Amino acid sequence: MSGVATSIATVCLSGTLAEKLDAVAAAGFDGVEVFEPDLVASPLSATQIRERARTLGLTIDLYQPFRDVDSTDPAQFERNLARAEAKFDVMSGLGCDLMLVCSSPLPTAVRDDAVLVTQLRTLAERAQRRGIRLAYEALAWGTHVNTYWHSWEIVRAVDHPSLGLCLDSFHVLSRGDDPDRIADIPGDKIFFVQWADSPAMAMDVLQWSRHHRNFPGQGSFDLRRFAVALQSSGYRGPWSLEIFNDTFRAGDPVRTARDGLRSLRFLQDSAHCVGDDLFTAPDVEPLGDVVSVRIAAGPGKSSTLQSVLGALGFVPAGRHRDYDLQLWRQGQLTVVVDASPGTVWTAPGLPAHLPALTQIGIRSDDPASWARRAHALAVPADSVGLPGVEPDDAVARVEVTGTTSVDVRAPSSAASWGAAFVPVPGVRTATSVPVLTGVDHVGIAVPDDEWDSVILLLRSVFGMEPHDEPDITDAVGLMRNRSVIAPAGSSTPFRLTLGMVTGLAASTFGTARRGGIGHVAFSCDDIFTAAAAMRRRGFTALPIPSNYYDDLAARFGLPGELLAQMAASGILYDRDADGEFFHLFTPTLGADLFFEVVQRVGGYRGFGDANAAVRIAAQPA
Amino acid sequence: MSGVATSIATVCLSGTLAEKLDAVAAAGFDGVEVFEPDLVASPLSATQIRERARTLGLTIDLYQPFRDVDSTDPAQFERNLARAEAKFDVMSGLGCDLMLVCSSPLPTAVRDDAVLVTQLRTLAERAQRRGIRLAYEALAWGTHVNTYWHSWEIVRAVDHPSLGLCLDSFHVLSRGDDPDRIADIPGDKIFFVQWADSPAMAMDVLQWSRHHRNFPGQGSFDLRRFAVALQSSGYRGPWSLEIFNDTFRAGDPVRTARDGLRSLRFLQDSAHCVGDDLFTAPDVEPLGDVVSVRIAAGPGKSSTLQSVLGALGFVPAGRHRDYDLQLWRQGQLTVVVDASPGTVWTAPGLPAHLPALTQIGIRSDDPASWARRAHALAVPADSVGLPGVEPDDAVARVEVTGTTSVDVRAPSSAASWGAAFVPVPGVRTATSVPVLTGVDHVGIAVPDDEWDSVILLLRSVFGMEPHDEPDITDAVGLMRNRSVIAPAGSSTPFRLTLGMVTGLAASTFGTARRGGIGHVAFSCDDIFTAAAAMRRRGFTALPIPSNYYDDLAARFGLPGELLAQMAASGILYDRDADGEFFHLFTPTLGADLFFEVVQRVGGYRGFGDANAAVRIAAQPA
Repeated sequence: MSGVATSIATVCLSGTLAEKLDAVAAAGFDGVEVFEPDLVASPLSATQIRERARTLGLTIDLYQPFRDVDSTDPAQFERNLARAEAKFDVMSGLGCDLMLVCSSPLPTAVRDDAVLVTQLRTLAERAQRRGIRLAYEALAWGTHVNTYWHSWEIVRAVDHPSLGLCLDSFHVLSRGDDPDRIADIPGDKIFFVQWADSPAMAMDVLQWSRHHRNFPGQGSFDLRRFAVALQSSGYRGPWSLEIFNDTFRAGDPVRTARDGLRSLRFLQDSAHCVGDDLFTAPDVEPLGDVVSVRIAAGPGKSSTLQSVLGALGFVPAGRHRDYDLQLWRQGQLTVVVDASPGTVWTAPGLPAHLPALTQIGIRSDDPASWARRAHALAVPADSVGLPGVEPDDAVARVEVTGTTSVDVRAPSSAASWGAAFVPVPGVRTATSVPVLTGVDHVGIAVPDDEWDSVILLLRSVFGMEPHDEPDITDAVGLMRNRSVIAPAGSSTPFRLTLGMVTGLAASTFGTARRGGIGHVAFSCDDIFTAAAAMRRRGFTALPIPSNYYDDLAARFGLPGELLAQMAASGILYDRDADGEFFHLFTPTLGADLFFEVVQRVGGYRGFGDANAAVRIAAQPA
Repeated sequence: MSGVATSIATVCLSGTLAEKLDAVAAAGFDGVEVFEPDLVASPLSATQIRERARTLGLTIDLYQPFRDVDSTDPAQFERNLARAEAKFDVMSGLGCDLMLVCSSPLPTAVRDDAVLVTQLRTLAERAQRRGIRLAYEALAWGTHVNTYWHSWEIVRAVDHPSLGLCLDSFHVLSRGDDPDRIADIPGDKIFFVQWADSPAMAMDVLQWSRHHRNFPGQGSFDLRRFAVALQSSGYRGPWSLEIFNDTFRAGDPVRTARDGLRSLRFLQDSAHCVGDDLFTAPDVEPLGDVVSVRIAAGPGKSSTLQSVLGALGFVPAGRHRDYDLQLWRQGQLTVVVDASPGTVWTAPGLPAHLPALTQIGIRSDDPASWARRAHALAVPADSVGLPGVEPDDAVARVEVTGTTSVDVRAPSSAASWGAAFVPVPGVRTATSVPVLTGVDHVGIAVPDDEWDSVILLLRSVFGMEPHDEPDITDAVGLMRNRSVIAPAGSSTPFRLTLGMVTGLAASTFGTARRGGIGHVAFSCDDIFTAAAAMRRRGFTALPIPSNYYDDLAARFGLPGELLAQMAASGILYDRDADGEFFHLFTPTLGADLFFEVVQRVGGYRGFGDANAAVRIAAQPA
């Protein structure tokens, strides 16, 4: 699908060197960078590694890193040359002809360009004799050479066919350097390119680099601009990934490698122009509104859920002929309650919290186009339909987390699917105007080691944009919190809020106390009318302490009458520069799921996160 | 034990406000700071909170924080005064007469001292009418006021009895400010003092403050110097703790509060002078050498362990008359193998890895003095002896982690304890010179949420000093790594290495793969002689890949003959400015425990951590 070779450094992945090679090949990369410490710790000899890569169909594109070669101490420089020769021996065994040479961060680094040029020329001559090429890289924390442009000036001055550049997006962009001048470097003097993204962090750049890099699309660097400049340079070598990330180091290497390939495809798709050989993802039909959610309740566990749905204005619209599924409807909204046996797992080894949200249904005219796009981006997506009821391409299902999928559904799907349900006897389908008008957003719990992976999936497949929201501090810890929002293109943008579940929150102490992350927030036009309607149906919203309303009064100076009305219905409040936000919550059902009703006034952009700690404290443990 | 009142902010702890108050009282604090968001989220009214604190014997020392009071916009300042009045109402309910007022970090903060003085005087007059005092604190990231000296200049200029200072060690020391001038501030104008320590971090100070503070003794700030200056000022109010720490927020509040009280006592002990009223910990007899370790093997699981001990030169010296304990001896060293039933837990809900190290025995002339010291520092310590064999005060046992204790043992204890063992028939007690001469260090796995707690315990009770060691990157992740070393006072200093077990490493994927952290490293005078003796006993050290020796040759230029000798015995090597380090490993026994034999040459200070990834890759999963 792309004419550009893809590669990945073994340091990105967990496992032994042999396992890393297997994972890289399984994900579909063309080649690999061998990270020296992985080789040193491997019981396989260099020639055995070469043979294994060959069998797997992988090229060994780079041996890395060779550090601290230049030195103001001539005797040390001689020892460094001897060290390089020893590494050339290893490369010869590996069958790899390209070595990464980094600029030195030592106090003994050469600080005179002319001396540095002489030393690097000597090394290049030694390499040439062994048929090896060197890719010189400016570390962002190099003592003397720490910008890509300086490294290019050195390489240009050395002017040796065995010495070229390695460009690493992290070292360029973490410094805030302008990547545009990459276009001015001759492409054939760029020997290698390493990609890394990263969240913006105000910290020591070495620590930042060593622990917090992530894949393109998982951070906030402008990699597209880097890619466009790189294409202009004429570089046509591999696009490789070099990510130092503590989570990747501890995760499943097969999954990480697949995320890596997706990230390169996503990056190429974002940078491609007509006529180039970069990867392009298939086009899709636009997404419409969220029209349905499916909730796994477990057998015999759905009675509280049913009464809450009823209070929210949903009406039981049918029971499935064959499965233990109930259909609840309100206007255009559908909630499917799944009371059939079956186990949902929240984490390996931990039993599910039921009820739990398992599917989010969103309208599109051509679900099959979404399945094609997901497949091209290395996301396993099933085209699913209910056998004998729906056509096979009526629904494209993309698993977002281990427990929740986004189902892109054709408009025809709902109707034909509905035919499998029989009406519930004695229930009058409501004819009154629905109180709830749509789905404002859906909240999902994401384990910390899947966080970056889930963000990348939502960005690449659905074109959603991540926004950092304030961390939520609650009674049992701190929760990282992010919204991902699809570009508008429907009446209500597709909004998800992601709450990070960490190892600590998932511990015995935390799990028992966390108030809930998974939720469905329904929108309404007038929350006071909605609350009154619910009260008539016997609904009691989550009770909010009076201290909260005293604090609201002190912070916002709201009129006492309004505050009293809000307190009576458990309605919370927030405000930003663009508007206001009113919301109320149901009590938590089981350990994790709750519903929210929200009213946005004006252009309020947030999700009421300032109130999350109050909500969580109010939700019974 | 101390004339200085102790206090702690509720933000330090996990749980509801009511649970936090219970934990603070249980730990033995005198008072508490109420953190506003805890109150806002509480279903208890201010008067109910006051009553609960009174019943628990706690004073409510401070209400905090009141933010952003000053403003260049006069209308906003008026609104801020109204907000303050609303909070004075809350304080009146709480029965608390001291409010923390922070300097403003907003762009709208007043930047003219004269205006700021006028606005704070207005606020102080309002407070005075309500019988309330204000403690003004310079946030390190305040827009205009961000040093304690500037905050003191403002307070001095306002010159109002209801306005004084709050000093927070984090805001002073994170900026690198000199705390000595605190001595020049009149103690009666310091209304409150908050203590926090922190690891040195090169990051944005706001994020640093909000997430990475910890208790005195857990970080690297020079709090003793701060304390000495504070004592000179004449301040005699409470010493309080205000710690924003993500781990504390998720942990057991009772344990966290107890650690907090210990940290204040440790700090006072380090700063006290003759005649002051600070806490002083009881004196102890010096620690001697590590003389024994106890290993839980589980019933019927000790045969591999026995053969490894035999290969290391230990000889079975006895079996216990009543319990399934075996005694192994070599010179002055004792290893007790516990094959009795009983379960060791590595983490809540996770089964133990057996064999596991459970006790470290260290010699001292007066164990009872150690038990007294531990008790005074709020560490549960048992004086234990084997019933009917040892006197009750022969051993002071301090639990360091949930699985491992340090047993301070009287010299008489070993002899009398040995009497409970019967010699193993047919075993000749070795008369040859022992190969192993002592215990160089012991490695312990520490869960991430106990890390700071364990460091504080070892510092405060045993006077050990922590040293950051390089993180260990291995096939399954990254492990934080620290050594704690007792000041020399015996032939071999008491050294522990602590490896952090994170949620990720403890996950299904990680646990199955982590090579091991828990180990006992024995010292020897000549590792080649030791290796030869072991080989004669049929010992095979952990095999090290030949790639490692190629890399050693390239890095250190060691002679080929030496390298060949090392490779034949599985000996690894490291070097620092002061000396050399040779070491070898046994294969891992079970999932976590291994033994190491080390030889230090010259003044080498490390633990061979540069080789840890190679070791871990070589240890079978």
